[in-house]
Amino acid sequence: MYSYKLIDPSEYYVLHPRPAYLIVSGSSSGRLNVMAASWVSPVSEEPPLIIVAIERGSLTREYVLETREFTINIVGEEHLNLTYRAGTVSGRSVDKWKMLGLEEKSSKYIGVPGIKGSYGFIECVLNKVVEAGECDLLFCEPKAIHVREDLYTRYGWDLRKARILMHVRGRVFTVPGRLLFAEKK
Amino acid sequence: MYSYKLIDPSEYYVLHPRPAYLIVSGSSSGRLNVMAASWVSPVSEEPPLIIVAIERGSLTREYVLETREFTINIVGEEHLNLTYRAGTVSGRSVDKWKMLGLEEKSSKYIGVPGIKGSYGFIECVLNKVVEAGECDLLFCEPKAIHVREDLYTRYGWDLRKARILMHVRGRVFTVPGRLLFAEKK
Repeated sequence: MYSYKLIDPSEYYVLHPRPAYLIVSGSSSGRLNVMAASWVSPVSEEPPLIIVAIERGSLTREYVLETREFTINIVGEEHLNLTYRAGTVSGRSVDKWKMLGLEEKSSKYIGVPGIKGSYGFIECVLNKVVEAGECDLLFCEPKAIHVREDLYTRYGWDLRKARILMHVRGRVFTVPGRLLFAEKK
Repeated sequence: MYSYKLIDPSEYYVLHPRPAYLIVSGSSSGRLNVMAASWVSPVSEEPPLIIVAIERGSLTREYVLETREFTINIVGEEHLNLTYRAGTVSGRSVDKWKMLGLEEKSSKYIGVPGIKGSYGFIECVLNKVVEAGECDLLFCEPKAIHVREDLYTRYGWDLRKARILMHVRGRVFTVPGRLLFAEKK
């Protein structure tokens, strides 16, 4: 039989691996910032709403409260080092956008761009903010979703080509493996 | 160069694959129910908080508001058909717990059990509820986390053994593939 052990209730890594994203935000004066986040989830389909949990002291939170706009960028294996670096350096000490050599891909409805070369990005407008411990939960309305034509089909990501990056812990990431098909009922 | 296309802003599958979980809840009279959910995320570390987005009309929501307790069960490839069935049948029309042949694994602090054989489960106590479109966002405090001794190490899930189930779309699921290690800075 299986044997279980108890671990600390703050050990949130039991809920990983989960997709890693790059969040792009901008100040009202037009300076861009980028950070990595995996505490992101759809929370409603009708109307569509997505939440992003973000540290209260972060520059991204400051920018989002200023402009009420940001993009969620979906990234893949080729963005591994970029994502790790974006998640471990603060935009307060350095211009991360420049340091990481990022290029803009214009949004359709908002001022903040996506990242050129990402698998896709969601143009988000802030709807409300809810406190959650040391983080703020940003509820956002997706206004447009851009996806790479070569990677996204009418059935979603083509997982033979789109190696969606998922965060495990620290420097460790993974990508989706085999596809599994549940039996029809 | 990459070419992008616009898709519908309600196409939340761009944020998948993401882990699939089984949520166990119980009525005050002790009847158990189970449902599948992947709109789940940690949202704070200090204090630890987790959100679960759940349809306003669901039996699970009704039970959770009644008892303020539930468990989040982490499942793997071997729970593929179970998870799909738990996600496509309503507990209002049938006793899903019985239908799916589930067995209880007792919790330490709450009345609602985990699922025996799952990779692990989190004992959750409801903290607050926030409306989000057609769903309610359940904010919960994890009181205890049970993990299978053979699958969880001090570095988290042993992904050579723990084939964490992730939902892609409809009947399609996946499991983590290769591990990737970001370069040290």
